[in-house]
Amino acid sequence: SGVIDTGIGYANNVGNGTQSKVGGTDSILGVSNVGFSGKEDLGGGLSAIFNLQAGFNPTTGAQSASGQLFSRNALVGLDSPGGKLTVGKQWNFNDDWLVGSIFKGGYNSGAIFKFSEFDAVSEIYNNTVKYVSPTFSGFQGGAMLGFGEAAGSVRSGQVYNLAGRYQQGPLLLAASYDHEQDGNASLISNGSLYKLVTLGASYGFGALTARLGYAHSDISGPGVFQSIPSQSARKAYAVEAGLDYAFTPAFTGSADAIYRKNTTLANNSKVYRLLGIYSLSKRTSLIANIAHLNNAGGASESLVATNSTAIGGGYANQSQTAVALGIRHLF
Amino acid sequence: SGVIDTGIGYANNVGNGTQSKVGGTDSILGVSNVGFSGKEDLGGGLSAIFNLQAGFNPTTGAQSASGQLFSRNALVGLDSPGGKLTVGKQWNFNDDWLVGSIFKGGYNSGAIFKFSEFDAVSEIYNNTVKYVSPTFSGFQGGAMLGFGEAAGSVRSGQVYNLAGRYQQGPLLLAASYDHEQDGNASLISNGSLYKLVTLGASYGFGALTARLGYAHSDISGPGVFQSIPSQSARKAYAVEAGLDYAFTPAFTGSADAIYRKNTTLANNSKVYRLLGIYSLSKRTSLIANIAHLNNAGGASESLVATNSTAIGGGYANQSQTAVALGIRHLF
Amino acid sequence: SGVIDTGIGYANNVGNGTQSKVGGTDSILGVSNVGFSGKEDLGGGLSAIFNLQAGFNPTTGAQSASGQLFSRNALVGLDSPGGKLTVGKQWNFNDDWLVGSIFKGGYNSGAIFKFSEFDAVSEIYNNTVKYVSPTFSGFQGGAMLGFGEAAGSVRSGQVYNLAGRYQQGPLLLAASYDHEQDGNASLISNGSLYKLVTLGASYGFGALTARLGYAHSDISGPGVFQSIPSQSARKAYAVEAGLDYAFTPAFTGSADAIYRKNTTLANNSKVYRLLGIYSLSKRTSLIANIAHLNNAGGASESLVATNSTAIGGGYANQSQTAVALGIRHLF
Repeated sequence: SGVIDTGIGYANNVGNGTQSKVGGTDSILGVSNVGFSGKEDLGGGLSAIFNLQAGFNPTTGAQSASGQLFSRNALVGLDSPGGKLTVGKQWNFNDDWLVGSIFKGGYNSGAIFKFSEFDAVSEIYNNTVKYVSPTFSGFQGGAMLGFGEAAGSVRSGQVYNLAGRYQQGPLLLAASYDHEQDGNASLISNGSLYKLVTLGASYGFGALTARLGYAHSDISGPGVFQSIPSQSARKAYAVEAGLDYAFTPAFTGSADAIYRKNTTLANNSKVYRLLGIYSLSKRTSLIANIAHLNNAGGASESLVATNSTAIGGGYANQSQTAVALGIRHLF
Repeated sequence: SGVIDTGIGYANNVGNGTQSKVGGTDSILGVSNVGFSGKEDLGGGLSAIFNLQAGFNPTTGAQSASGQLFSRNALVGLDSPGGKLTVGKQWNFNDDWLVGSIFKGGYNSGAIFKFSEFDAVSEIYNNTVKYVSPTFSGFQGGAMLGFGEAAGSVRSGQVYNLAGRYQQGPLLLAASYDHEQDGNASLISNGSLYKLVTLGASYGFGALTARLGYAHSDISGPGVFQSIPSQSARKAYAVEAGLDYAFTPAFTGSADAIYRKNTTLANNSKVYRLLGIYSLSKRTSLIANIAHLNNAGGASESLVATNSTAIGGGYANQSQTAVALGIRHLF
Repeated sequence: SGVIDTGIGYANNVGNGTQSKVGGTDSILGVSNVGFSGKEDLGGGLSAIFNLQAGFNPTTGAQSASGQLFSRNALVGLDSPGGKLTVGKQWNFNDDWLVGSIFKGGYNSGAIFKFSEFDAVSEIYNNTVKYVSPTFSGFQGGAMLGFGEAAGSVRSGQVYNLAGRYQQGPLLLAASYDHEQDGNASLISNGSLYKLVTLGASYGFGALTARLGYAHSDISGPGVFQSIPSQSARKAYAVEAGLDYAFTPAFTGSADAIYRKNTTLANNSKVYRLLGIYSLSKRTSLIANIAHLNNAGGASESLVATNSTAIGGGYANQSQTAVALGIRHLF
C-alpha cells in the first residue's frame, strides 16, 4: 500500500529573495510513501504488528531522506488490551495526533512545522521505544523514548515525548511534550535542550470543523538536535486557527491562519492558507492550495526553500506566496 | 511486479583502451526494476493511474540511479477517453514509442542511445507533466513538459517533448522531438540547447520484422542538460536498420547496423549487433548478444564504459567488441 | 515477504574503550529485510527462480548497505533436477550452510564472522555465478565464482567458493572454502590472497542440539578484498562450540563459546554467548541475548563497534559485554 502526492507549483521570492519559480511539487498534503504493514493475531488479545514506509518524492523518484529506505516508519512490536509497544524508527505523537487533525498543511504548502523553531511538530525519531495506551472513556495517552546512542552518556542526543488526547463525539483535544537533548555535547551538563509543547482542539458542527492549535518552543542554545538546525537560545510560540467546510460530499475547503512569534528575537511571521480537496473517489483526490507568508521584525521563515542560508530558509522581512495544484492517490 | 535482466559479459579494449574485461552484466535488453502500478476505475470512463518503478543492478544490488528509489517511473494521473494526463518522473516518448519497437538494444549491449549525442533517445525526465492522446484511426500523439525549477527563469533547465505514432496492421511509424534547455545559465539568453529529432518505422512480414530508425542531434554549446554531458557545439545524425526473425515460436534472432556521423567534428562510428532471445516461457528468456563498435575520424564512442574520460567514454578510433549471455525474468 | 529484527541493547567499553552505550539494536539474530522471490514452473522439471532482498536497519530506516536497494540477494536463474544455476549478487555457502545451523549469532550479538579475519564466514559477493547440486544420499555440493571485473586481469578481485554439506537424520556436516583475490593489484602476480576454510557439524539428541564449528583464515598481505579490510599477512583460526536446548516447544535457549587465535600475531579472543528465543507464534519471537568478549595478547576485536580504529574495531586487551532484547517478526 502507499500514497502518491504530487503536482505542480509556483512560489515567488525564491532566488535572491525576489525571483519566482515554477516546478514540480511534492508533499502538498503529505509525503509520498510505499509501505508494508500488517498484524498477526497471537491469541488472547495479543497481536504482533509492523509498519515499514519508504518515503519518496515523485517529481524526481528520490528517497525523501537520503540513504534511508524506510524513512517514514520502520517499527515492529506488540499490540494488546493493555496498550501497544513498538520499537524502531517512529513518528512522534505530534504527528500522530495533532498534525493530521489540527494543524494540517503539507511540506510544500504552508505548515506550522516548517517554522524554524517548530520542526518537532512533525518529526520521526530514530532508535525509539513507543507505548500507546488503550482508550479509556475517550482518553488515550502515549510515551516514547529515543536513545541518543552516545557512548558515555545516556542523555546525550536522547529524545522523549509524552502525549495525550481525548475524543468525545465531535470534540478532539490533544497535547504533547517533546524533549530533545543536544547530541553533540560530550559532557551532557553542557548540552542544550529543545523543548516543544503543543496543544490542540477541534470541534465539528455538521459540515464545519473548527481547529485551534498552539505550540511553544524553548531552545536553550546551539546543539545537534534530531529535528531542528543549531540555533542560539530562543523562545517562540505559534498559534493556528483553521476551518474545514464540506461544501459537498466530494469537495472540502479549508482556511487557516498561523501566527508565529519569536519572543526572544522579537520577530514574527504570519501564514494564510486556503486548501481545496476534490475527491474523485475514496482513494483519489485533486488538490489546490495557496499559502501566503509574511515575515516581520527580521524574521526569515519560508514556505518553500529559497537560496537563502538564513535560519528558516527565507529572507528577512520578505513575504512569499506559494500555489500548488496536484493529485493524491492511495493504493 | 518487476523484471530482472542480468548475466555475464565480456568486452575488449576497456582498460587503457586495450585491456579486456569479464564480469557480471546488467541491462542486456533493459534495466531491471521492481515496481508498483495500478488503475482505479473512477466511473464515466475516468480512471486514476500510477506507476512506480525502482531500477536496480542485480550484479551488485545497487540502485540504478544513486539516491533514487523510483528512478524508472514515479507517475500518477488520470486516464480518460480524452487522453491520459500524468505528473512526476517520466520517460520521454522516444523511450515509450521508439526504443522498444524500432531502435532496440540495451545499456550494455550496443544501443543508439549510448552515443554521446543521442542520450535523449532513452531518457527519463524529472518534474514532468505528460499528455498522451487517445488513438484516432491508428494515430496517437503526445506532449510532455519538464520544469527546470530555476528561480527567476521558467526556461532554464526546461525540457519538452512532442511525439506521434501511427500503427496500422503490420506498419508502425513514430516520430519525436526533444528540446532540452541548459539548466546552468542564470540568464537564459546565454543558455545552450540540445535538440533531438527521431523518426522510426517498422514493418512485419510474417515472421520477419524490418526496422529503420533515424535520429538527428543538435547541441548548440556546453551546458547542464538532463540527458547529455556538457560538450561543445556540434551536430550529428545516426541511422539504425534492423531485422528480427522468429525462427521458431520460442527463438527470435535480430541483426542491427547503426551508423553515427558527427558532421561538425567529421567523425563517425558504426555498430553491428546480433541478438538471440530464446523464450523458456512468456516470463523467462535466455539472451545472447554480440556487438561490435568501430570508431573513425577521431570518434571515441564505447559500447561498455572504459577508463577513458573522453566524450563517449571510449578511446579515439578504437574499436570494441562486447558479448553478453544472460537471463531475463518477469515477475 | 520479509523479516524485522530489532530491539534495544547495551554495550560497555565502547567510547574510548571504557564508556558504555544504550540504544536501539538491529540484527540481533540477523539482518532485517524486505524482499520479493518466486519460482516459475517451466515444465520438464525446470523452473525459473529469483530472489531480491532489501536489507535495512529498523532503528533508523537506513539501507543496510549504502546505495544498495537489494543488498541481501539479487539473483535470478534456473532450477532443474541437475542443480540450480543462478547469477547476480549472492551469499556465499558459509552463510547458506554454516551460519544459520552451526555458527549462529547475529551482527550485534556476538558472532564468529565479526572477528577481523573471519568476515567471509558470512559474506554476500557481487557479480557471481553460483551452482548448487541436487542432494545425493544426503550430500549436496556447490560452487560459486565472483568476477573481479578488472580490465586486463581476470583474477584481480576474483572470488570463488566451494562447499559441501551432508545431512542424515540428526547429523549435519558442512565445509566450505572461500578464496578472495586482492582487487587492488593491477599486476595480479603482486596481489594478496584471503583464504578461508570452514568446517562444521551439528547433531540433534531430542530437544538438544550440539554444534561445533571451525574456521581457518590465511591472509597473505594487505589488499582490497570483498569481505575484510586491508591488513598485513596473518593466519588465524577460530573454534565455536554451542548447544541449543528446547526447554518447551516455545522456548529455546542456546549457549556458545568461541575461541579465536591469531597465530601470526600471537593474540587471542574469547566470546561467551547466551541466547533465549521465545516464540509467540511461528512468525513472531522475543529475543534476549548476552555476549561477553575477552581480548588477550594485544587482540582488539569487538562485539559492537567502538570508536577505536584498530583492526577488529575494539581496544587492545579490552573486554566487552553486550546485551540485547528484541523482537523478530516474519511477514
